[in-house]
Amino acid sequence: MSIETLEDALADEMRDMLHAEKQMTRALRKMIRKASSEELKTAFEEHLEETERQVERLEQAFETCGLKPRGKRCEGMAGIIEEGQEIMQEAADSEVLDPLLIAAAQKAEHYEIASYGTLCAWAEMLGHHEALELLQENLNEEKQTDERLTSIALELNRQAQEAAQEG
Amino acid sequence: MSIETLEDALADEMRDMLHAEKQMTRALRKMIRKASSEELKTAFEEHLEETERQVERLEQAFETCGLKPRGKRCEGMAGIIEEGQEIMQEAADSEVLDPLLIAAAQKAEHYEIASYGTLCAWAEMLGHHEALELLQENLNEEKQTDERLTSIALELNRQAQEAAQEG
Repeated sequence: MSIETLEDALADEMRDMLHAEKQMTRALRKMIRKASSEELKTAFEEHLEETERQVERLEQAFETCGLKPRGKRCEGMAGIIEEGQEIMQEAADSEVLDPLLIAAAQKAEHYEIASYGTLCAWAEMLGHHEALELLQENLNEEKQTDERLTSIALELNRQAQEAAQEG
Repeated sequence: MSIETLEDALADEMRDMLHAEKQMTRALRKMIRKASSEELKTAFEEHLEETERQVERLEQAFETCGLKPRGKRCEGMAGIIEEGQEIMQEAADSEVLDPLLIAAAQKAEHYEIASYGTLCAWAEMLGHHEALELLQENLNEEKQTDERLTSIALELNRQAQEAAQEG
């Protein structure tokens, strides 16, 4: 496919993100099984539900732009997920698996923040107001998830330090 | 390599980032050649110099933690760069090549923001104060570059709209 206009670029990037979000739902299912702290498990479960709604919003965004929703292999997210899976193997029974899962998830979140940031800018430039609203909602959720993961990382570290002092 | 402690995780993530930054210097050289607006070319050139200093800081951070600086293939950044290269081919002579280069660069910046964010948190938890300072400096630069790219994207769009109205 050749990209010649900003409309083409928007469509191409939306296809990339549709594939990325679908990859993310599969990765999150694995991460839920791997997470040991209840807080992190819950955060991943809630983000999985959120991601499923984000896929729906993205499909609506395609339609409001007169496009058929379809995905296109997203190499960026594929690399991030591959890296996360390697880490999960290397740290299989480790006490730091939760911090590593958080780090991997935050890379995925930041990929999505960058991509939705671009999509929102382009949708606005092109006057696709309905799509903009849907994409902005996804962007805000990704930012909130990133912040929530940072809080959980700090909380888990505080708990680990307390346990080390008591032990 | 197996990751059992937060120290192992920090070392592993620093190796990932050392490789990522080196990949980024190569990608930036290509992006400088491809960019058509002078403003974007300059931003990429300046970020290339900055990235070379970031590699040095990262190598110092290894040393302050008593580690030998060495890289490890970073799949996340590899995927992002591969995606950027595909886009450059698909949009070879397009008027939207600059916006696409900005979008690709912002994905790379966000990968680095996520990774340095994690590294700073772990360095702080582990009491590696010197490393923390170096990593924090890199993190701040990546955030500034991301913001600068957003401003350039908006400015290029304004110029394109003016040119369209005049034409």
